[in-house]
Amino acid sequence: MRPAISPRTLARLPMYYRYLEDLNRQGVERISSHLLSGRLGITASQLRQDLSAFGQFGQQGYGYRVDELLRSVAKVMGLDREHNLVLVGAGNIGRALLSYDNFSRRGFKVLRIFDVSPDIVGQRINDIPVDHSRNLAAFLAEHPVEIGVITAPSAVAQQTADLLVAGGVTGIWNFAPVQLKVPSHVFLEHVHISDSLFLLSLRMQAGC
Amino acid sequence: MRPAISPRTLARLPMYYRYLEDLNRQGVERISSHLLSGRLGITASQLRQDLSAFGQFGQQGYGYRVDELLRSVAKVMGLDREHNLVLVGAGNIGRALLSYDNFSRRGFKVLRIFDVSPDIVGQRINDIPVDHSRNLAAFLAEHPVEIGVITAPSAVAQQTADLLVAGGVTGIWNFAPVQLKVPSHVFLEHVHISDSLFLLSLRMQAGC
Repeated sequence: MRPAISPRTLARLPMYYRYLEDLNRQGVERISSHLLSGRLGITASQLRQDLSAFGQFGQQGYGYRVDELLRSVAKVMGLDREHNLVLVGAGNIGRALLSYDNFSRRGFKVLRIFDVSPDIVGQRINDIPVDHSRNLAAFLAEHPVEIGVITAPSAVAQQTADLLVAGGVTGIWNFAPVQLKVPSHVFLEHVHISDSLFLLSLRMQAGC
Repeated sequence: MRPAISPRTLARLPMYYRYLEDLNRQGVERISSHLLSGRLGITASQLRQDLSAFGQFGQQGYGYRVDELLRSVAKVMGLDREHNLVLVGAGNIGRALLSYDNFSRRGFKVLRIFDVSPDIVGQRINDIPVDHSRNLAAFLAEHPVEIGVITAPSAVAQQTADLLVAGGVTGIWNFAPVQLKVPSHVFLEHVHISDSLFLLSLRMQAGC
């Protein structure tokens, strides 16, 4: 059995993935642990320890093969397969997410968009059909969906989460600024966009 | 002189601030370090250590006064004063940010929006004037702006950053999926929205 990966290693994996993907796109074939860790702003021993949590990579004096490491990181992250999503709330933030082609490229496939606005129900956004939110439960009953994206107003965020969970969704990506309650088998990532602005302000204030 | 605050403490402060603000809004007057740390998912000793980095708070057997701690955290984060911002790129993500009233409430004041689209130049969004991007340098020459928000397309993100820096901006909040080069005196926060989706996928895959 694979040993449990520490929360800190987990939190760093998306950064590794992003960076390795960049290197791969630039045609870089291999990179030393020293150089890779330096670029990522961590120590070489930290990097080796993180990567050892999910396999043996790298050779003394050779470094890492970028494509091999990228594939392994992608696999650990579940990015080597498709995920079905629904998105609830086609306001500005919902549309911004839908316009990033990065998600579909990485296998995150939005099957349907739900909203209540008569202006867009029945239309398509980025070629994805927009359905009325009242049909969410019925849709989930007929389609296997892993991840629900909540970009709806705060006032309806919890009831949306409840419908998603009842419909079998096991991951929720929440953009509504409200603390959601979900059962323990459901994974929840809450995006606090303002945190990074606060952190910027803090770093400017503290000068570090 | 205040001792330097560790990067990990820094990264946790926005969460402290958010949580304390919630408690304060709910009328909670004091909270024990045990309860507060538990809610935040860290240890009580971690919390005490973080908070000791910027002052003495809390009393044995009494806990923390929520309003006092909130004010102190806000001050350390530079949230006790106003910040002038400009936003470049009024697409979906730009509009989503502008529609959050949380930023202006916390003192982040967007003075002007810049875009190139003739449909919106000369208009107002959330009562903030939209100017043509070609006028950015001239605007910065006449108005003191601390923070530039880049929600423009990747292709123009670096040149936008260069204009912002030349215009005296010392903080950049970047949403374009591109690595920006800025001088060392400029603070940069890059928002990688996809990281949290990757982390969600990873946690679902790893079951943790």
